[in-house]
Amino acid sequence: MFSSAMFSPQPIGYARTPYTNTKQIPKGLNAEHNAEGVLEILAQFEAGLTDIEGFSHLFVLWMFDRSEGFDLVSTPPCDNSRPHGVFATRSPRRPNPIGLTVVQLQSRERNLLQVRGVDMLDSTPILDIKPYMSSIPPETLRRGWLAEAEARARS
Amino acid sequence: MFSSAMFSPQPIGYARTPYTNTKQIPKGLNAEHNAEGVLEILAQFEAGLTDIEGFSHLFVLWMFDRSEGFDLVSTPPCDNSRPHGVFATRSPRRPNPIGLTVVQLQSRERNLLQVRGVDMLDSTPILDIKPYMSSIPPETLRRGWLAEAEARARS
Repeated sequence: MFSSAMFSPQPIGYARTPYTNTKQIPKGLNAEHNAEGVLEILAQFEAGLTDIEGFSHLFVLWMFDRSEGFDLVSTPPCDNSRPHGVFATRSPRRPNPIGLTVVQLQSRERNLLQVRGVDMLDSTPILDIKPYMSSIPPETLRRGWLAEAEARARS
Repeated sequence: MFSSAMFSPQPIGYARTPYTNTKQIPKGLNAEHNAEGVLEILAQFEAGLTDIEGFSHLFVLWMFDRSEGFDLVSTPPCDNSRPHGVFATRSPRRPNPIGLTVVQLQSRERNLLQVRGVDMLDSTPILDIKPYMSSIPPETLRRGWLAEAEARARS
């Protein structure tokens, strides 16, 4: 079932974060991700950061490099009411172990991006960075099981 | 520079879209992405979609499978005022050829997700789907060269 023409992922850099163990990462309902970290981009990719300072927020794509295998269905810690499909969660145990985090860009010095909002382990390989260009208006969002679990937690 | 422990990407499905040629895809300032399409998930991953219907919007990670090589710096068609680094653009020519699109989920039938907002070519391999859980408030966004180019286009 593997395609003949996929690619070989390579790190463009590594995340420096306060987290050495997944237990330290805030999870669950209302988890706040305000931790500061550094995206350390490899020197040979530094030119790719040209002009990035103009963006306040970035998408960071990274690899769950300390996760093995995947579960199609699981029960997240913040909602044990019923199991959810992996594509309806942020579980690390995914068919392709790619993580996605929105961070706030605070400053750049050469190949180092100082950011806020990291939620990955220290030394996580970074695969890509993209500018965050627009938001879905919050009033148009439906958030499924997450909203239901939040409502239960409040009541 | 390749890490010893990267992963082998595999398609979890394929996008069915109206676009067979990149020239057909709306690009540039104010490009609207309202095209409808179908995310056809492979049967063996269908269980991973459990409960996804509750979300109005999804992140789709996919592969630029018809793009080869990368440019660290380039001049996007909508802004020839100066070159931009690849990580400050959505260029397909990236070190890891991964695309990211936010789509609106309209309905699901078994392994088929009917969505709005596709901007990838027909038959594009899908790598991952994640729920869109929250938005950065639009008033806090800075959008760098894109905002500058929009301002120039209006004047």
